[in-house]
Order: sequence, then C-alpha cells, then structure tokens
Amino acid sequence: MTYSQNSDALPAARPLQPIGVFDSGIGGLTVAAALRCVLPAEPIFYIGDTARVPYGGKSAVTIERYSFEISKMLLEEGAKLIVVACNTASALAVSALQAELDVPVVGVIHPGAAAAVAATKNRRVGVIGTRATVQSKAYERAIHAIDPEVIVEAQACPLLVPLIEEGWIDDAVTDQVIRRYLDPMLERGMDTLVLGCTHYPLLHAALERYVGAGVTLVDSAKNCALEVKTLLETRGLSAPVSQAGQLQVALTDPSSGFLRVAEESLGLKVGEVQLRSVIQGAVRA
Amino acid sequence: MTYSQNSDALPAARPLQPIGVFDSGIGGLTVAAALRCVLPAEPIFYIGDTARVPYGGKSAVTIERYSFEISKMLLEEGAKLIVVACNTASALAVSALQAELDVPVVGVIHPGAAAAVAATKNRRVGVIGTRATVQSKAYERAIHAIDPEVIVEAQACPLLVPLIEEGWIDDAVTDQVIRRYLDPMLERGMDTLVLGCTHYPLLHAALERYVGAGVTLVDSAKNCALEVKTLLETRGLSAPVSQAGQLQVALTDPSSGFLRVAEESLGLKVGEVQLRSVIQGAVRA
Repeated sequence: MTYSQNSDALPAARPLQPIGVFDSGIGGLTVAAALRCVLPAEPIFYIGDTARVPYGGKSAVTIERYSFEISKMLLEEGAKLIVVACNTASALAVSALQAELDVPVVGVIHPGAAAAVAATKNRRVGVIGTRATVQSKAYERAIHAIDPEVIVEAQACPLLVPLIEEGWIDDAVTDQVIRRYLDPMLERGMDTLVLGCTHYPLLHAALERYVGAGVTLVDSAKNCALEVKTLLETRGLSAPVSQAGQLQVALTDPSSGFLRVAEESLGLKVGEVQLRSVIQGAVRA
Repeated sequence: MTYSQNSDALPAARPLQPIGVFDSGIGGLTVAAALRCVLPAEPIFYIGDTARVPYGGKSAVTIERYSFEISKMLLEEGAKLIVVACNTASALAVSALQAELDVPVVGVIHPGAAAAVAATKNRRVGVIGTRATVQSKAYERAIHAIDPEVIVEAQACPLLVPLIEEGWIDDAVTDQVIRRYLDPMLERGMDTLVLGCTHYPLLHAALERYVGAGVTLVDSAKNCALEVKTLLETRGLSAPVSQAGQLQVALTDPSSGFLRVAEESLGLKVGEVQLRSVIQGAVRA
C-alpha cells in the first residue's frame, strides 16, 4: 500500500499555524499537556479518533491507514508539524508519514527510547504498551539504534487502558493487574520501565508504588515535547513567544466521558470540543 | 439522520441466500453458534467490524452509521435476513434498520428481554452490558413492553470484554471485577440476570459461580436463533433441511487473536476468514 500527499495543495508552513497532534482517542492529551508546558506560545490542534478507538489491538495496515486519514485532517487545519501522540500509531505509521507528508512528523517512540537509554544503569529496560506496539518491536529497534547492548523486554498490557478509562486509577484490582503484567520483567532485574502508551502516565502513581524506587519510569510526553521544540526552532517555525497558544480539541465521535477525567488529571483547559468526520481513504494514492 | 436502501437493486430474498449476521467484533459468534445449532441447514455470512471494534463506548449516531454500513455489506453478500448479533447495535440501530431495509432484521434485545420476563419469579431483573447499551435503556423498554411491573436494573460493565479478550476467563481478577459490578444488583434481590453483551456467555461459569443458583442467567443467543427460525418459516425463507449450511466469516481488520479463543470456546468451525473493507457512508440518503 502506498500513500501520497499532494504537495501542490499545501502552502509552506508558517509559525502561526498550529502544531497538529493526534491519538486514537483521549490518551494523547498527556502529550498535548507536555507541549502546553514546554511550548506555551504554540497553538495546538488535537484530533482524537474516538470513532475508531482503540488502535492497539488492530492490524498494522489498518493503523497506518487511520494515521494517514487523521494526519490529512490535521493538514487541513493548517498543521505546520504533526505529533503522533499515540504509541501504537508511532510504532506502525511514523516512518510512512515522514516519507509521504510535507511537514515534519514526530512520534513518541524515539523520544521515549532516548529517555530510557539515558535512564538505565544496568542496561535492562522494560516496555509496556498495547498488543500492536509490542508486536511491532518499535521500542526495541529505537533503543538498539542508540545502544545495541541494552536488553529490552516488552509486555503487552491490554487491560490497563480499559481500567484507566473506567476510572479505577487507584484501585486494588488495577494493582493486581499491574502485578500480573510486570512481575516477570521485574524478576529479571530491569531498572527502567518505558510507559509505552499515552494513557499510562495516568497510572504513574500505581506503577511507581509497585515497581519501587529502584526502577525509573519513563514516559515519552515530555521528551516528545522537547523534540518538537528543537525541530520548530531548527526550521524557523516557532510561534512568537509573545503569543498565548490555545488548545483546540476535535473528536471523530462525541462520546467520551473519559475526556473530562483526562482534563482533570492533566489540569488541561480543553473548552468546547469539536466533532469531525473522518475523510476515509482520502490520502491513499 | 436518515438512511435509505435502494430497493430496486435488491432481488426478492430466496431460501438459499445466507442469513447475514454482524457484530462489532468476534463476540457475535456466540449468536452464530446458536444459529448453527437451531438451524443447521442455513448458510450464514458473518461480518465482524474489527476495524472499529468496540461499539460499546461510542455514540448512538456513530453506532447507527456503522450498523447501516455493515448491513449494506451483508446485503451485498445476498443476505435474506439480518441478525444484529451485537447488543449495542441492537439497542441503538435495530429500529432504524427495520424501518429502512428491505429484508427482515432481528436483534438480540427483544429475545433476551422475552427470556428474562419468562424466567423471573420475583419480577426483579438485572441487565449487564456496554456503556452504550445501558445508557440506551433498550432492555428496560423491551422488558416493560412485555410486563410493565418488572423492576429492571442495569449496570455497565466495560471491563468484562477486555478481560474476556485477554483470555482471563477463569481468573481471580475477573471474579473480583464481576463482584464489584454485580454486588449492588445482587443485594437488591434480582433473581434473573440478562447477559446483555454477546461476549458475556464466555463468562457464564464465572458469573454463575458468583451469583449462585438463585439467579437465572439469560443470554439472548438461543432465543434470538429461535426468533430467526420462526421468521424464516413465516416468510417461506427457510433453506431446505437436506442442505448443510456453512458459516463464512469476514472481518474488517485481520488482527484478531480472539477469533481462535471464541472458535475453541464455542466449538465453531470458522475456516478461512475473509477480509472486507467498510463501504463508508454507502447507505446514507
């Protein structure tokens, strides 16, 4: 399958255009929150593909198609740069998006991998994520590209997102599920754990309680935001610092009680949420 | 939003055409298994919308749109009757499908409601299902249409499907989640519990163990199959009994380890699975 973006239709990116951010749903707001913090002047347009959430159990082909469709919608909002704030889509679609789109594309895998390599002392890193992310081995590849000696072990944790969305954040059941998933990795002595799904920072306290002070938890959000900052500066695309950037949120399905949970946990001001239809197959050549 | 089906394009249904069955994913195979058992001569064409699964947390508008799109695909397979083997889609789209399509449409809510009313002695019925099914109050309406005196209490159980798909069927964590969801209803004295999601029969043993012998578990699958049988006979659409019906399965996304779990649990022979693309918006007027 190949995709192409008609570059004739896109004017050159300008600093006042928004950073486009997307996720399969609401979890990517953890990345949007980090961007607000690191780059307060930047306008952000966020799309959550809630009509088709979750991506994490779906196939590579479908995840890539969805990623192109949502990226196209962000380009129509004038995005000057696209942040793939979803580990699953980052694992499976960032390379293709980078190859085909005319704006810079930043995923969350590389920043997370770099942070993990910087954090580990014993060179044993654990990664947790969705089934699709773990099967893709994207974190292993990204970590080994930086340091081939690091031993990486990954575990799919498909129950964590539903538990978070149910609001069972600080809960005995969630603690048991975490124990079940993490015990084998912990026994083998990892000292760093990558939270390879944008929902997981909401479980930071529960995860930290379980793994203890000897294991560093790494989430990609802040590192991703720093990578975006560097890229905007390098390309001369940063918004003037005098500006106060706004966050606009659009969803492909209006149903999302979890949005308010995330908004509150993250201290994000989301305001009115827009509804958008997916332009299916629009960018496929 | 209105939909229409161009009836000129559809020849009159014939007995040898398949029964079309759809679900948001794999769970509806519990209904396909019941159909195989009650109507062994009938060919069945099943579509699981795995590219957009689950429906249960999405909005009514999106669920209705998806239901029309998948029904259209079943009509293109020559379906003589459509079974909505998904409680969420049955709750939110069956009336619209019945009004707009030219073939009979059978959902799982009415058969489940009828079975619950027949089973309850103290007229206290519990219903468990997805968020969308519970919010729709479809079971309450269907039960009250038969007996307005029955007290119905419904509980959304969004963690049960992920637990089943993770294969934690006979598991201490799942038992605790069941306890958390069902305790309040059980305390108020229900004697009948409707399994209002096609995945839940796979948890029959765990649910039965928890609620005890005093509570009858009702699932719609068998009653739905019996309703289909009656309808086919009434309309003269039954396949000749000499025929051995086959089950064909198509999915909108190929990724589904859970298919093999379901196949094994249900003793269903699925064979080669086809892949189909959704015809988005195809039946909207």
